[in-house]
Amino acid sequence: MEHLYSNRVRQLKASEIREILKLTQQPDIISFAGGLPAPELFPIEEMKVVTQKVLSEMGQEALQYSTTEGYNPLRSKIAQRLVNVGIKANKDDILITSGSQQGLDFTGKIFLNPEDIVLCESPSYLGAINAFKAYECGFKEIETDKDGMVLAHLEEVIKNTPNVKFIYVIPDFQNPSGRTWSEARRKGLVKIANQYNLVIIEDNPYGELRFEGEMIGSIKSFDTEGRVVYLGTFSKTFSPGLRIGWVLASPEVLNKYIMVKQSADLQTSSISQRELNQFIDMYDFDAHVAKIKKVYKIRRDLMMNTIKAEFPAQAEFEIPTGGLFAWVKLPVNIDTRKVLVKAVENKVAFVPGGSFFPNGGQENFMRLNFSNMPEDKIVEGIKRLGEILKEVM
Amino acid sequence: MEHLYSNRVRQLKASEIREILKLTQQPDIISFAGGLPAPELFPIEEMKVVTQKVLSEMGQEALQYSTTEGYNPLRSKIAQRLVNVGIKANKDDILITSGSQQGLDFTGKIFLNPEDIVLCESPSYLGAINAFKAYECGFKEIETDKDGMVLAHLEEVIKNTPNVKFIYVIPDFQNPSGRTWSEARRKGLVKIANQYNLVIIEDNPYGELRFEGEMIGSIKSFDTEGRVVYLGTFSKTFSPGLRIGWVLASPEVLNKYIMVKQSADLQTSSISQRELNQFIDMYDFDAHVAKIKKVYKIRRDLMMNTIKAEFPAQAEFEIPTGGLFAWVKLPVNIDTRKVLVKAVENKVAFVPGGSFFPNGGQENFMRLNFSNMPEDKIVEGIKRLGEILKEVM
Repeated sequence: MEHLYSNRVRQLKASEIREILKLTQQPDIISFAGGLPAPELFPIEEMKVVTQKVLSEMGQEALQYSTTEGYNPLRSKIAQRLVNVGIKANKDDILITSGSQQGLDFTGKIFLNPEDIVLCESPSYLGAINAFKAYECGFKEIETDKDGMVLAHLEEVIKNTPNVKFIYVIPDFQNPSGRTWSEARRKGLVKIANQYNLVIIEDNPYGELRFEGEMIGSIKSFDTEGRVVYLGTFSKTFSPGLRIGWVLASPEVLNKYIMVKQSADLQTSSISQRELNQFIDMYDFDAHVAKIKKVYKIRRDLMMNTIKAEFPAQAEFEIPTGGLFAWVKLPVNIDTRKVLVKAVENKVAFVPGGSFFPNGGQENFMRLNFSNMPEDKIVEGIKRLGEILKEVM
Repeated sequence: MEHLYSNRVRQLKASEIREILKLTQQPDIISFAGGLPAPELFPIEEMKVVTQKVLSEMGQEALQYSTTEGYNPLRSKIAQRLVNVGIKANKDDILITSGSQQGLDFTGKIFLNPEDIVLCESPSYLGAINAFKAYECGFKEIETDKDGMVLAHLEEVIKNTPNVKFIYVIPDFQNPSGRTWSEARRKGLVKIANQYNLVIIEDNPYGELRFEGEMIGSIKSFDTEGRVVYLGTFSKTFSPGLRIGWVLASPEVLNKYIMVKQSADLQTSSISQRELNQFIDMYDFDAHVAKIKKVYKIRRDLMMNTIKAEFPAQAEFEIPTGGLFAWVKLPVNIDTRKVLVKAVENKVAFVPGGSFFPNGGQENFMRLNFSNMPEDKIVEGIKRLGEILKEVM
């Protein structure tokens, strides 16, 4: 039946995330692989209260079909919370999605023709790369430094590349690098997008998880021409299992996302939206996020200190100031895919960095998640990795 | 920014379902428009028990990321229940989707290149038409009679049409016509798909809601070459607000759906899958479906009898033996879009039939839902429609 498949599907390959999530299901493995939140921080008791209340007070509505755009009280709350990243919005600017991965898929569907080019940070989030690839695009990777994309390189690439539609960036505690863009780079990016008439896709799943330093306004907050699409999610601040994210965009662009959402899955879960809305009504969401940040900061410190103590001296890394991930650079002759094989034999997992470079060719990086594992396993797992690295380096 | 959009999105138009769902949110309207289940039959008290149990016994797992394929105990239960439609399957044949609308979207993504042709019943489900259209396909409508597609017409069209990938059908209590395919036609369709090397997409959201007569085996149950993709859902037998459906396909084809699911939204809600699984464990699902059927049969009878009494004699209809919809044919000079305008003025709604013909040109049909409105409103609403029809005919 091979000839019956679409061109887009014929060129797809199975992604590593999937195999990784399978690995992490083995109970005896120390996994730094997935981007999983700490499950012991999920507000389970509060969810029990909230689910009862929603079913008692609006059970019929919660189990019925509802509108594509999403539950209005939740849309309003999301809009209000966006002041945290410097954005003034109201409910009509928001579409609720089934996680922000769905926002990425819709972005590809809305903007990309085959052969179009996506500009992204080098490295970039592999789930976004896979979502866009499904629409048969190519990628140009833009150089990054500790302040974000190198804008001179970006502009040079734009000038020399036909069929660029958008620039995809994760400006806060980037996945995988952990880096955060400076305000100057954010403003500079908007200026370039305006000048060359491009869209910016700002993916911000981790922005609320800042451990130190001051919040920097989102790129969307500097948007002067309605050309920034902002993707958000509750997966990292509340629960990924509920699958609730959102898209914020100017009315014309948001209307495309709504149309695409309707044909893709009609709407996001009526009951999940109402439960989350009820949680925000009844409990202190900021206090919940503060609790998460406190734990993740301890784990970040522990992981970085243990890496410093246990990894060979040639391993390079920066200290992420928030988010979920550390990013380690090894000498160019080290292939971390091979390191992973040894690691899994020793019951520890991470993601080899190669998958985060859409055009390949850089195999000497490791992405390490510090949010999911408890403290003792962080120490033990990093020690095991350190031993393996000392053997191969 | 118009030039930045993909070709697929530039050719999309907003669908009527969306505007219709908005209409039905007005509390004073009698709506026969949406395909909404009866909300008073939702098992709200049972859901209260189930949500507490899931959060108590597996709260962390229910709120965490999980695998793309879906929750294994639920996949197993779905596979087991498929004996009801004559299918032998096991969990590995099943992918859980966010409603069966998502299965339709993935079907377009997996099989359709621009300019490919979808063969469908005339009329066909407008949500499927819109999902496929997003992949820039064309449609050929196949004639239908009371037993399903006219297979001679189907074969003639296949012979004369390049780039056909699949045949999309709803063989049980079809949306919108209410018709059910005979066993002979089902077997004949499989034979034709085998002969011409095509895929069959069997969409079966209503099959379990049979009011009278014997179950006819699904088309998938007659599949000899693994070329039938079967789409199912809990939206009509349990709750659409949870957004849980599934795809059943042969391993090679299912693998494409899984890859596409991963880049589209990673997974369906962890907690919703566990709640539904718990419900099936704790309660009698068949008894719940039987309760729904009993109520819908009463409503079907009431609607059809009232139509017979109140609509002009030129209105033609058949009695659907299950499902959610009645389909009424009016004289060719009647444009039901104009009838809808008058109907909404009189606080009653239905779906004009034109949207169910992908190539247009047939405006003299009405789709009427009988599952959602209570008995008194069915009588009142049909009377109002009858008066309007008498005026215009």
